[in-house]
Amino acid sequence: MEGYRLFLVLLVSALLFGFLSVLFALVWVFHYREGLGWDGGSAEFNWHPVLITTGFIFIQGIAIIVYRLPWTWKCSKLLIKFIHAGLNTIAMILAIVSLVAVFDFHNAKNIPNMYSLHSWIGLTAVIFYSLQLVLGFAVFLLPFAPASLRASLMPIHIYSGLLIFATVIATALMGFTEKLIFALKNPAYSTSPPEAILVNTLGFLVLIFGALILWMATRPHWKRPPEQNSKIQQPNGGTPEGTEEESTMTDCSNTDKSDVEFNSEAAARKRNLKLDEVGQRSTM
Amino acid sequence: MEGYRLFLVLLVSALLFGFLSVLFALVWVFHYREGLGWDGGSAEFNWHPVLITTGFIFIQGIAIIVYRLPWTWKCSKLLIKFIHAGLNTIAMILAIVSLVAVFDFHNAKNIPNMYSLHSWIGLTAVIFYSLQLVLGFAVFLLPFAPASLRASLMPIHIYSGLLIFATVIATALMGFTEKLIFALKNPAYSTSPPEAILVNTLGFLVLIFGALILWMATRPHWKRPPEQNSKIQQPNGGTPEGTEEESTMTDCSNTDKSDVEFNSEAAARKRNLKLDEVGQRSTM
Repeated sequence: MEGYRLFLVLLVSALLFGFLSVLFALVWVFHYREGLGWDGGSAEFNWHPVLITTGFIFIQGIAIIVYRLPWTWKCSKLLIKFIHAGLNTIAMILAIVSLVAVFDFHNAKNIPNMYSLHSWIGLTAVIFYSLQLVLGFAVFLLPFAPASLRASLMPIHIYSGLLIFATVIATALMGFTEKLIFALKNPAYSTSPPEAILVNTLGFLVLIFGALILWMATRPHWKRPPEQNSKIQQPNGGTPEGTEEESTMTDCSNTDKSDVEFNSEAAARKRNLKLDEVGQRSTM
Repeated sequence: MEGYRLFLVLLVSALLFGFLSVLFALVWVFHYREGLGWDGGSAEFNWHPVLITTGFIFIQGIAIIVYRLPWTWKCSKLLIKFIHAGLNTIAMILAIVSLVAVFDFHNAKNIPNMYSLHSWIGLTAVIFYSLQLVLGFAVFLLPFAPASLRASLMPIHIYSGLLIFATVIATALMGFTEKLIFALKNPAYSTSPPEAILVNTLGFLVLIFGALILWMATRPHWKRPPEQNSKIQQPNGGTPEGTEEESTMTDCSNTDKSDVEFNSEAAARKRNLKLDEVGQRSTM
């Protein structure tokens, strides 16, 4: 893998910023707020920032880059697809539970629901995330969709996934802002008490985590190579047309027999591979 | 150009959402707030949302996709670089003026500066945007940087440009949230008065504008083709090594003689072009 060491540095950094984000969210609700509970009060509301940071940001971010982890390339794509879908399902469940916590809290306190820009965009993000998950499951995980449909939908799937992820982070930043304005009265947010500094920093941590994930997810040379299967099957490096769809894996049992070249970039890489010397990996 | 009609539809949509965003910002400050002025009061503050929406979002968005407009491909890249840099410079000036308006307003009203997450991330975005502009000018516009440096920095330039653009939109959404909470007291934001609906809708318009720009900016097949020059010079379609750097343009006078293949994707496309039949454009 080209730039393997840099990839590792970025991955460790992303994990660090992700863990720190979750830690800061926990410190916020346990040290400065009412902790966690399920009683219709503030402790129930507090599940909202904790579960959004943990599930809808950190776990979703990891789900996005799971294909890029080079040590998974020797496993079947179907297995990685299950991990990708599984992590996203966990993230969606946590996001929905966190929404229930807010609606419960609002209803118990007679605060109107769905009036803020944060709530409008946040609910839209959850709806699109659910659609993305259902469509992704139907098209890419179930074995019924033709390869041409998968190939044409994959760029949209990738783009909408990254857009939803970025939108979730933007929504979280709005949420932090709202909560700090509403909760900090004496001392006020504008006097920068320690809680304000902590949550502002949490906002930055989440932003940097998102930036690292988006960088890793959009580097063409860190993409899971579609030609990997063929290389394993053909030690001399030959890559005749069609081998990819028929190949079996080395050390993982679940083989996806319907892998397709997902977009033009992958197609370009494969074409270039054919030009390269026998057995040599393209670095395009 | 592959998918030219779709590109046009998206471009017209982006322009529509961009214009609507500016219009909504103007309706907000003129119909619901104190209009525009430069007196240290609310009318001076109002320059902030208007100039950010107009300059830092709409103009920056257009600057990002200016290379993708197919009718500019017959012009020299240097000319388009000047337009790209010029639009970004205008956007930066408007962003800085909009910051001055807020600091003036805060100082006149004895409101602390730089306490909110919105201000932390917003100022960071302006600083990175300025750095991006200066570095972009030094590396890609001035004729001193070697082609290898340009090629290695271009993916970072593109990524950081898109990240800053997305961060600016996220910051604007935080700003709309803050202002609505602070300004709407009777009736309160939570009762969804018309002003709240208008500004929430403005938030959505800005988000959709951003999503359209990011889609157009990241489609590989809508990239300005680096091989265009060679094709013009060699009507038989031959593309010998190095011609790009020596070519002259057809109908625009400013020719950039130092164009480089900016990233591996462009390189892949050029390599594939050589494989294609004489005179046939690659659709990679």
